[in-house]
Amino acid sequence: MLKVPEHQVAGHQAIDGNLGPLVDDSGRFYKPLQENERGTKELAFYRSLSSDTLVPDHIRRFFPVFYGSQLLEASDGSGLRPHLALQDLASNHLNPSILDVKMGSRTWYPEASDEYIQRCLEKDRTTTTVSLGFRISGLQIYESKESGFWKPSRKDVLNFTAEDVRLVLRKFVSSNSSDMKPDCCFAPTVYGGPAGILEQLLELKTWFEDQTIFHLNSTSLLILFDKESVLKGRTPLGEVKLIDFAHVVEGKGVIDHNFLGGICSLIKFISEVLSPI
Amino acid sequence: MLKVPEHQVAGHQAIDGNLGPLVDDSGRFYKPLQENERGTKELAFYRSLSSDTLVPDHIRRFFPVFYGSQLLEASDGSGLRPHLALQDLASNHLNPSILDVKMGSRTWYPEASDEYIQRCLEKDRTTTTVSLGFRISGLQIYESKESGFWKPSRKDVLNFTAEDVRLVLRKFVSSNSSDMKPDCCFAPTVYGGPAGILEQLLELKTWFEDQTIFHLNSTSLLILFDKESVLKGRTPLGEVKLIDFAHVVEGKGVIDHNFLGGICSLIKFISEVLSPI
Repeated sequence: MLKVPEHQVAGHQAIDGNLGPLVDDSGRFYKPLQENERGTKELAFYRSLSSDTLVPDHIRRFFPVFYGSQLLEASDGSGLRPHLALQDLASNHLNPSILDVKMGSRTWYPEASDEYIQRCLEKDRTTTTVSLGFRISGLQIYESKESGFWKPSRKDVLNFTAEDVRLVLRKFVSSNSSDMKPDCCFAPTVYGGPAGILEQLLELKTWFEDQTIFHLNSTSLLILFDKESVLKGRTPLGEVKLIDFAHVVEGKGVIDHNFLGGICSLIKFISEVLSPI
Repeated sequence: MLKVPEHQVAGHQAIDGNLGPLVDDSGRFYKPLQENERGTKELAFYRSLSSDTLVPDHIRRFFPVFYGSQLLEASDGSGLRPHLALQDLASNHLNPSILDVKMGSRTWYPEASDEYIQRCLEKDRTTTTVSLGFRISGLQIYESKESGFWKPSRKDVLNFTAEDVRLVLRKFVSSNSSDMKPDCCFAPTVYGGPAGILEQLLELKTWFEDQTIFHLNSTSLLILFDKESVLKGRTPLGEVKLIDFAHVVEGKGVIDHNFLGGICSLIKFISEVLSPI
């Protein structure tokens, strides 16, 4: 049985007869392949990722598992359509708190059309993309059984300032997320620790300092964790995943300095939640 | 006695009655203060650098020594004009090979005027700035007593591709610089080694991962060395310096991910000269 994902925080959504991703009960996430070259690019990326021995295993775990492409009834009722069959990253979480962080101080790239570049540049300048090297493009934070999730509107999220980003990164790991003075009580276990978010980001950073295979333009970094799992001591406490590869281009022997600068900036923000200055 | 610097590879030059920097015999470099806010910014930057205890000593050595501002007869004959009195970085070199690398994948910044942003963006896209995270904006490579320096024209330098940059970084440390198969014989001592260029760049990189005081927009990284000094075993073998701070803005608690991405990219290029892939 295919259904609309419960925990999607950004991107096109399969509601009100729109085209969007679907999930099933077996833990798979089906993303409709975009009809233009973006779909081709994303499929090619997942294929090369599965076959490419240049991406080491400890890095491959940051990407959703890829199960191939599959023809499925599209969510907008337009009939059969190819979908990417991927791991549903939220499926093993009950009430996941999720941050979707679009990486890089630019989302455009020289190979794109002028019209696309102008549109991206405009959005990069009006969000924190240029100033911080990343922008939060969606989020949900689980508050409690009673109040459920805090999930600000797309418009509110795009209007985030650097200060808002700082506050959200603190609220994300707090038991009193709705408070203006978040307690950050989950920070040491979720952001910190030997397998925490910060260590995972540092591992990715080290790879980006060296890898010249891909430039991950407009790719998002998902940060997920489950407050209840943390309270019960279940692992993994927090997960980092990379998603959205419709604008990936070949690295041609040059590192992805755009993604790298952004992840270094994000690392600094998260370090400061752990060790306030 | 003030004279025109012999080893300037980029920027305005004090020749043919133009306004440009001057040097004297005591090892000082006098840079005319620009009349608009750029001059004010650069002066303020040097002043805060000298007074700011937040910049550690091992990082301060990457900046030219600042001796204050000084009224001098301008090189264009327009009369007395305030100049920045700086260390002449080339003064202790006989025949310095010099690379001027403008850092960052963008030279503009949100606080600049729209007109300036458009102009920078255009140039960033037509040079390697966007693709590599830096562009070579000037260079001279000492070849021999007979042939002197190889100093390509400003136009040729701005047309450099990624491949040209790779070749220049190899020629820079070769005894046969004019050859298409440079021998890279100076690479181990100049780029490599415990006090080499690579180590200096890594030290700067570590600082940029943490510092949120300044964003060094449009700043250049100078790489200097003297083939004859290297052959005679004189130290320092190679020097890294930062120059041009007319577009520095406050960091406001955010790292300079633009400069950082660029220096990581440059580090990768230089590593590959040391350990060809």
